Amino acid sequence: MRHRVVIVGGGFAGLYAAQSLKRENVNVTLIDRRNFHLFQPLLYQVATGALSPGEITAPLRHVLSKQKNTRVLLGEVVDIDRGAREVILQDHSRLEYDTLIVATGSTHHYFGHPEWCHSAPGLKTIEDATEIRTRVLLAFERAEQEPDPVKRRALLTFVVIGAGPTGVELAGALGEVSRDTLRDDFRSINPAEANIFLLEGSPRILQSYPEHLAEAAEKSLIELGVRTMANTRVTSIDDYGVTMGTSHISAGTVIWAAGVQASPLGHMLGVPLDQAGRVFVAPDLTVPGHPEIFVAGDLAHIEQDGALVPGVAPAAIQQGQYVARALHNRLHNEPVAPFHYRNKGSLATIGRNRAVADFGKIEFAGYFAWLLWLFIHLFYIVIFENRVLIALKWAIGYFTFNRGARLITGDHR
Amino acid sequence: MRHRVVIVGGGFAGLYAAQSLKRENVNVTLIDRRNFHLFQPLLYQVATGALSPGEITAPLRHVLSKQKNTRVLLGEVVDIDRGAREVILQDHSRLEYDTLIVATGSTHHYFGHPEWCHSAPGLKTIEDATEIRTRVLLAFERAEQEPDPVKRRALLTFVVIGAGPTGVELAGALGEVSRDTLRDDFRSINPAEANIFLLEGSPRILQSYPEHLAEAAEKSLIELGVRTMANTRVTSIDDYGVTMGTSHISAGTVIWAAGVQASPLGHMLGVPLDQAGRVFVAPDLTVPGHPEIFVAGDLAHIEQDGALVPGVAPAAIQQGQYVARALHNRLHNEPVAPFHYRNKGSLATIGRNRAVADFGKIEFAGYFAWLLWLFIHLFYIVIFENRVLIALKWAIGYFTFNRGARLITGDHR
Repeated sequence: MRHRVVIVGGGFAGLYAAQSLKRENVNVTLIDRRNFHLFQPLLYQVATGALSPGEITAPLRHVLSKQKNTRVLLGEVVDIDRGAREVILQDHSRLEYDTLIVATGSTHHYFGHPEWCHSAPGLKTIEDATEIRTRVLLAFERAEQEPDPVKRRALLTFVVIGAGPTGVELAGALGEVSRDTLRDDFRSINPAEANIFLLEGSPRILQSYPEHLAEAAEKSLIELGVRTMANTRVTSIDDYGVTMGTSHISAGTVIWAAGVQASPLGHMLGVPLDQAGRVFVAPDLTVPGHPEIFVAGDLAHIEQDGALVPGVAPAAIQQGQYVARALHNRLHNEPVAPFHYRNKGSLATIGRNRAVADFGKIEFAGYFAWLLWLFIHLFYIVIFENRVLIALKWAIGYFTFNRGARLITGDHR
Repeated sequence: MRHRVVIVGGGFAGLYAAQSLKRENVNVTLIDRRNFHLFQPLLYQVATGALSPGEITAPLRHVLSKQKNTRVLLGEVVDIDRGAREVILQDHSRLEYDTLIVATGSTHHYFGHPEWCHSAPGLKTIEDATEIRTRVLLAFERAEQEPDPVKRRALLTFVVIGAGPTGVELAGALGEVSRDTLRDDFRSINPAEANIFLLEGSPRILQSYPEHLAEAAEKSLIELGVRTMANTRVTSIDDYGVTMGTSHISAGTVIWAAGVQASPLGHMLGVPLDQAGRVFVAPDLTVPGHPEIFVAGDLAHIEQDGALVPGVAPAAIQQGQYVARALHNRLHNEPVAPFHYRNKGSLATIGRNRAVADFGKIEFAGYFAWLLWLFIHLFYIVIFENRVLIALKWAIGYFTFNRGARLITGDHR
């Protein structure tokens, strides 16, 4: 019987691991709760109406349809039986593995305040993105109809908590929505008067970037009407706004872009986890004591040069590809070198023509960083058709200042 | 003070009425429950994953942003005070009008069986479309995991009830999804073995079309694996399938494309309604006894040459434009000619290269009908950018047989 590989999670790590096993003499089963791969780096563009959900997702079956050694299973893993080498699915069915690759990523973390989740949704899933899109658009709609100036001001106040790349990109996009996209759309309010706050607990925005790039990003944010507040710790969030110790911001819309916690599947492995729930893996990304179990992507805790390998898409892709190579070597009795993360650089966009790029030796901000951001993101879009559609939508958006996908959907009417 | 026009409903009739009032010296308020105009004729393409919701919708504010005499109000009209000439909104606020245009369209009608709604959703809203898309895709996913051949067969059985243009287009698209789109996607099932039934209560499909075109359409449907059943009256629908008197079809997915009922706003006008709830309007589309109230679109009952003007997009557009012209004439003390519906012909598509066209004098089926269908639908898409996107998506879909927007979303996981 062929060696059976079970991959849990169809994100960057899981999907790239599956694709890299294409030519191996193994049977691969990729399990995911969703029927699509999600290109998370562009999720904020769905939340702000620039792209549609279909454009940043790729049906897993479609991506892997020609890969005959692989099947896709829609399902949720609820436990792992390491003794029997089986994963247990929600419907109690069991699936045997010879090698297991756990790549279930991460979710939001509200620092011990799960009750904030309702008032300040995070941005991890397609549903999160359409929910945030609905809240943002509804806030403007309600402001248009609100006669009380104090309430109107609160409705036109948006708070983004957490100034990492996601928070910065989201706040910048909100700035563009209010200044450009909605410019002529209302009669009682001026959308450009919206107040957008970007709160950060640490001393500055974009902690992972060099200081002068963070300064450039902050300057761009200010031009888009975003006020950044560093060293600001949130003590309470409710439907009326955000409290930070003794000060308060009345805001109709609060978005969470701060804490991240690893997927609960780490707990099922029975091994030590770090504070955020990540699994301490060996240098070859296996779980200590279980060489048949790999952990890849945001769920893995691996350090390099004294720092944690970051939870970003390129790291997850490299880990997925590495695991496939490691398995290949093992099956061919070849030595397996430890995983090595190659930092290809980081990019964050703030708005049209505005981005920051950090490639270690070269660091720059502005138009060329923005162009580079566009090309690199397009390059990693899995399906060619989506690449074409996104490029076209970006071109249209660039010239018309419009965002076509600004639908209020769901039960909020 | 300027003459105040209130339009309720931003569908074809309401939106075209508003746009046709662009140069009038009036204040226009367009009220809709949703923040977008929906291009309903292509809704079935969202339900079958070919297009994304954002592509067949146009934000009402955006469409009317440059029209300075017009404002858009997101809200639901719950009553009409004809004496005070005010519409009453859900939040109890009141809005005065000098002229009222009611264009709230129609919804599903389950022929006295509202309980069928859960098992057999209809196709009227964006949420309906994504719900049907989720059900169709989940049926294939569950079939892939179902060991029992009887249950598997039921999961792979799809029933569309009602063989008017919507039912025919939907059934044809389901045929393509199972035969083309999903061809290589599964390992345990062959999607092409899906059973698709199209049920019709009357003696044949496409009653409103000439008989030989209906025959051509039926032939095309059969080629796509769709079995049509005429003279078939459904007596019961539940989660296990459809019962027609003594016979039964076990089906995991049932879609309703049969009855239509006018919007409940007709009841608030205090005038006679027809069986489907449409308002009997005067030849100038006003409500008898209320020359200041117009009814346009699917909600209006108006006969011409002994037949009801059909509830189709071109009729709604013509009525919306007519009402604006009638109001113009009235404000300028010019005579108002009665509404006259110009039937520009009907088109229905069954699948790639397959459509039927009925232009009265000319009737034809096949490739050219299909091309014509494409161009005419693109022409009526309100936003230019969406026209480009849809054209591109259709081109990609034509050459790749793929449907990019096949997401299972919501709480069905």
